Amino acid sequence: MTQQNTAGSGRTEPRIDVAALGEQLLGKWAQDRRTSRRLAGREDLQRIEGQSMDEHRERVFNQLSILVDEGAIQRAFPEAMGGANNHGGNIAAFEELVVADPSLQIKAGVQWGLFGSAVQHLGSTEHHEKWLPGIMNLDIPGAFAMTEIGHGSDVASINTTATYDPDTEEFVIHTPFRAAWKEFLGNAAKHGRAAVVFAQLITNGVKHGVHAFFVPIRDDNGFLPGVGGEDDGLKGGLNGIDNGRLHFTQVRIPRTNLLNRYGDVAVDGTYTSPISSPGRRFFTMLGTLVQGRVSLDGAAVAASKVALQIATTYAHQRRQFNATSTVQEETLLDYQRHQRRLIPRIATTYAMSFAHEELLEKFDGVFSGTADSDEDRQDLETLAAALKPTSTWNALDIVQECREATGGSGYMTKNRFTSLYADLDVYVTFEGDNTVLLQLVAKRLLTDYAQEFRHLDAGVLARYVVRQAGNVAINRSGLRQLAQTFSDTGSEKRSANFLKDAETQRGLLTDRVGTAVGEVADAMRGAAKLPQAEGAKVFNEHQNEIIEAARAHAELLLWESFTTALGKIEDEGTLQIMTWVRDLYGLQLIEKDLSWYVMHGRLSNQRARTLGPYINRLLARLRPHAQDLVDAFGYGPEHLRADISSGIEAERQDEAAEYLRRERAMADAPIDEKVLVARRKAAEKAKRKAAKSAATKGKKVGA
Amino acid sequence: MTQQNTAGSGRTEPRIDVAALGEQLLGKWAQDRRTSRRLAGREDLQRIEGQSMDEHRERVFNQLSILVDEGAIQRAFPEAMGGANNHGGNIAAFEELVVADPSLQIKAGVQWGLFGSAVQHLGSTEHHEKWLPGIMNLDIPGAFAMTEIGHGSDVASINTTATYDPDTEEFVIHTPFRAAWKEFLGNAAKHGRAAVVFAQLITNGVKHGVHAFFVPIRDDNGFLPGVGGEDDGLKGGLNGIDNGRLHFTQVRIPRTNLLNRYGDVAVDGTYTSPISSPGRRFFTMLGTLVQGRVSLDGAAVAASKVALQIATTYAHQRRQFNATSTVQEETLLDYQRHQRRLIPRIATTYAMSFAHEELLEKFDGVFSGTADSDEDRQDLETLAAALKPTSTWNALDIVQECREATGGSGYMTKNRFTSLYADLDVYVTFEGDNTVLLQLVAKRLLTDYAQEFRHLDAGVLARYVVRQAGNVAINRSGLRQLAQTFSDTGSEKRSANFLKDAETQRGLLTDRVGTAVGEVADAMRGAAKLPQAEGAKVFNEHQNEIIEAARAHAELLLWESFTTALGKIEDEGTLQIMTWVRDLYGLQLIEKDLSWYVMHGRLSNQRARTLGPYINRLLARLRPHAQDLVDAFGYGPEHLRADISSGIEAERQDEAAEYLRRERAMADAPIDEKVLVARRKAAEKAKRKAAKSAATKGKKVGA
Repeated sequence: MTQQNTAGSGRTEPRIDVAALGEQLLGKWAQDRRTSRRLAGREDLQRIEGQSMDEHRERVFNQLSILVDEGAIQRAFPEAMGGANNHGGNIAAFEELVVADPSLQIKAGVQWGLFGSAVQHLGSTEHHEKWLPGIMNLDIPGAFAMTEIGHGSDVASINTTATYDPDTEEFVIHTPFRAAWKEFLGNAAKHGRAAVVFAQLITNGVKHGVHAFFVPIRDDNGFLPGVGGEDDGLKGGLNGIDNGRLHFTQVRIPRTNLLNRYGDVAVDGTYTSPISSPGRRFFTMLGTLVQGRVSLDGAAVAASKVALQIATTYAHQRRQFNATSTVQEETLLDYQRHQRRLIPRIATTYAMSFAHEELLEKFDGVFSGTADSDEDRQDLETLAAALKPTSTWNALDIVQECREATGGSGYMTKNRFTSLYADLDVYVTFEGDNTVLLQLVAKRLLTDYAQEFRHLDAGVLARYVVRQAGNVAINRSGLRQLAQTFSDTGSEKRSANFLKDAETQRGLLTDRVGTAVGEVADAMRGAAKLPQAEGAKVFNEHQNEIIEAARAHAELLLWESFTTALGKIEDEGTLQIMTWVRDLYGLQLIEKDLSWYVMHGRLSNQRARTLGPYINRLLARLRPHAQDLVDAFGYGPEHLRADISSGIEAERQDEAAEYLRRERAMADAPIDEKVLVARRKAAEKAKRKAAKSAATKGKKVGA
Repeated sequence: MTQQNTAGSGRTEPRIDVAALGEQLLGKWAQDRRTSRRLAGREDLQRIEGQSMDEHRERVFNQLSILVDEGAIQRAFPEAMGGANNHGGNIAAFEELVVADPSLQIKAGVQWGLFGSAVQHLGSTEHHEKWLPGIMNLDIPGAFAMTEIGHGSDVASINTTATYDPDTEEFVIHTPFRAAWKEFLGNAAKHGRAAVVFAQLITNGVKHGVHAFFVPIRDDNGFLPGVGGEDDGLKGGLNGIDNGRLHFTQVRIPRTNLLNRYGDVAVDGTYTSPISSPGRRFFTMLGTLVQGRVSLDGAAVAASKVALQIATTYAHQRRQFNATSTVQEETLLDYQRHQRRLIPRIATTYAMSFAHEELLEKFDGVFSGTADSDEDRQDLETLAAALKPTSTWNALDIVQECREATGGSGYMTKNRFTSLYADLDVYVTFEGDNTVLLQLVAKRLLTDYAQEFRHLDAGVLARYVVRQAGNVAINRSGLRQLAQTFSDTGSEKRSANFLKDAETQRGLLTDRVGTAVGEVADAMRGAAKLPQAEGAKVFNEHQNEIIEAARAHAELLLWESFTTALGKIEDEGTLQIMTWVRDLYGLQLIEKDLSWYVMHGRLSNQRARTLGPYINRLLARLRPHAQDLVDAFGYGPEHLRADISSGIEAERQDEAAEYLRRERAMADAPIDEKVLVARRKAAEKAKRKAAKSAATKGKKVGA
């Protein structure tokens, strides 16, 4: 057991085995992660702040070549193409690049995770041989042209068409109106030579739904005939990526440029597909693209770790002291409010990290083929839809709190927070808008709850899920079973024992989700059978509730992952402290939704009132371990790159303290006016007392 | 009464008189505000996105000259100097500049609101005559050198010294160590020619505390001898301002450069002051600087209005529809979740706006001299300390939600949100860190509650308030009286009637504050008498609670301002709708802290459960008025300058709808595979039915 002797006392306090905990956080693909962190620590792969958009775009584009040369992007491609069929390790490595520059992570994601991945997963072996080498070595930079201006997340409703012409054996790619322009595409404004374009496939007068086509868009002279576009220009962040719009005017491509794994057109125009249901075919095609969400989840975790490692190190060093004080005072982190600001977020980041590792293993199982049943795929989709919103919103909250907790220094670009925030901001709305994804999770929860909702296809919820979030499979199994209704029995156990009991936390968190889903389901029962407008109205009246239930469900999943991870900790000291951290994570969730637990009779008023104070005591107990907790995240100075966590703060303080110590020791040091005032008052008081005493004496004498 | 006939029905629905409501929002200084909005609409005063830091700095510096030429900065200066002694109007006009570019607002604030204002309020008439003309016409750009690296908000503890040398009749300004460098000063990195430097005044061996000195720092050749500094470089935003550090090595200035209104040094070194208490003198000097907080409060309101006007206009236009649907579908704002995201924030912005107007009137009373008793000054300090944190945090929340609610478009710089967020980010930590200011409010609440806390001078809270937030006067009167303990009598009235009753809302909100303060006060009772370390521990254990009480108090102040404003609305339709908006503001506050109300028995579980659904119904009722509500904010296209609220979205939709309408009308339009599948299934079913029917018939026949 890692312990620390408390000076003088016989007691030993638990301590964290930082190295072992750090290793556990690195997870199954520790080696890939380490390799990638080494790259992320290289200056030539890092962001230069203050570059213009054009300079930043060029730098990031050139950095992609370094990644190619270093063998950093090949892991997930087929072995035949020089890859390693290593899907989990690929994502683990890829998401660490966020630490160098989020633009680099996302630009690499566009090229290999979206564009290359679409060719790999939607194309045939012939397509692989033709295009993957050039995609992998960057001869063919490409865009992933799915989203349209008029349809953000609603892929099924895109309006770009690909009409087969049997006379020339070509597809004609066409944008019918301005709302159908492809939008927000990385690589579209500048570097892209080709694009995987999603369009409605039409042949022999039948529209077969969304399919993907390989379309050359640029050569050395610019756009090819019929192709046009616009530069999206400056964005809130990620300006190392050249996002833009694309449109097509009767652009002809060979029939064989259809990525035909899930649907093909013969020379004569006959359509065939291995999947007969158009709906299922669509979801299968889009299901191959889940890795974007998985990697955003992981990148959000990495960015949160970096921010907290910087802010906590500073809060642990920064002291408030003044010229007149002779004792060293508290550090920022000794203040309760500061503990409230940082330590619960450290707990959340651990929960996110452990949950992401589980997601990554699920992803690897499906994509490597070791566990890729329909159920596995559906679970992967739902898990990614639950975790990505949770972690990306958490990351913004964490980075912002770190920025504010470090005051004006936190606002300086050199201390990292503001750029991290600006870059990560878009993570909450791209690759599936968070609100839309949570509705997908809600749909799954309702389906698990009652068969009636399985074929939900009318109304607001359905429209959001089936259409807006249409690029994710709808599925119905594999969610954790919802627990029995939980209630506070008000047993004799003291409140703290009650609250820190894992079964109490699980029971409360699970019941929160289950009951909310049940209530909404009951309220919506029958609505699916109403005429569309009326049904939609009923659904809409419960939209907020069901989204909140989905959010609570995702948080429960994080809590479960954290609890599972505790089971893998061997060192007793670490286990003790990490159990407190898990408790803190669970209890802050309960505190956030406390009104729900009380209103629904799950916690008595009395018990609920002990929660806040108990959390405060947990924070005080964790305070001495805060630095260890963030050190275990494992990022070095080459990753943190922040002035305030470099040790300069402690240096300045030591210099000031030494100066003030010497000054106090000097005989001719200036005396404070306040001291003079106090002395004068004391002298006056003494004088009055003496006078009074003299008067009394006089009286006595006189008496 | 402004009303609208509901088509077909005899009922009339209330409508908002947008012009009248807009006029009310413009407030007492409507004319100054309008003049300034006209300036803010001028392209040459607006931000050019994508400029480098250097270009942006030069542009903003040059824009200051435009403001001088337009007479936009003179309002608050003495009439003798060409000013108008118009303090309220000055702030009203100044804060509107945030709409053009927050850098312009803050750079102007540095030059005239801080630097110039310090000379005006801390200097003598002689100083005014010597320096104000050059400050006003920009011949003397200057920095406000108060903050030091080692002491963010703790002005009383700064370490820069100004030691009087009677031999030369000079002050020697000196920076003893690196932690005492002046930090984050606008105008310091580049444009500043002089600075008002705050330093510990030492004369005749006595340190008389912090005083302000006029110190020349630069001429055409750069820093003057003994002066040095560093450029803070890139920041998260506000890059049009040249923030930097300054340090002084035995820099000599004439004795008469001491801004001597509240403390002077004679030729022989004798110190005199009209205020005998060093503490009171310090707070009086710094009290003159409250206008920074007042104007940040107002700027946060203006930025929130702009963001909501853009996002609501878009949400009101953007429809989701697809190729197969024949009816126009809901706009984004018809979705409950979207209503939940935007409409409560509109309500909050109204509350902020009305509260700011009250703050501005209080400020004008004090600074114009029409209502400037000690009590007025103290109330002004406390009100500013309560409102500035509330509005600046709200502004970040509002701008971010608008950005997310507009999806990928919201992330494009051209749609304004991301730059507004980046610039306003620092508003929550500068001019008094929000957390520190709330502790000042907390101190006031405790002092109002019990005399014991009046002289609180030990422990965490005191240290935060007296030292960290030392630049704000501590005061004890004028807060709204805290109401009697409120409890839900569970009367017969229906829940909705109960909740929408203004007295219910006031009672709940007031009781929340009063009870929390009482609880903390009881817990801390006696702690001030403990030895310092133990007392500090007790205070620290309640720091979070008391800050939360201060936050709740500030929100109550906003609610009260809103309610007061309702009394000034004459149009009945407007009054009806604005009462709903006020209810929404109040009820969302209660919903946010709902666990408190239930745990403390102020709301029954039953009643509490009706709150969420009632808020949802309010949102649906306000939905039709959302556009009017944001139009009343009154900003024009020249202020919004956002692509997505320009009408382009509606145009694109109309084009798409027309195309799809024509397509559906064509005889040879492609047919959807899903329709074919459905037809085939129907045909198969009919065939089976026919076969079954035939079999039955055959049986019958055969029987």
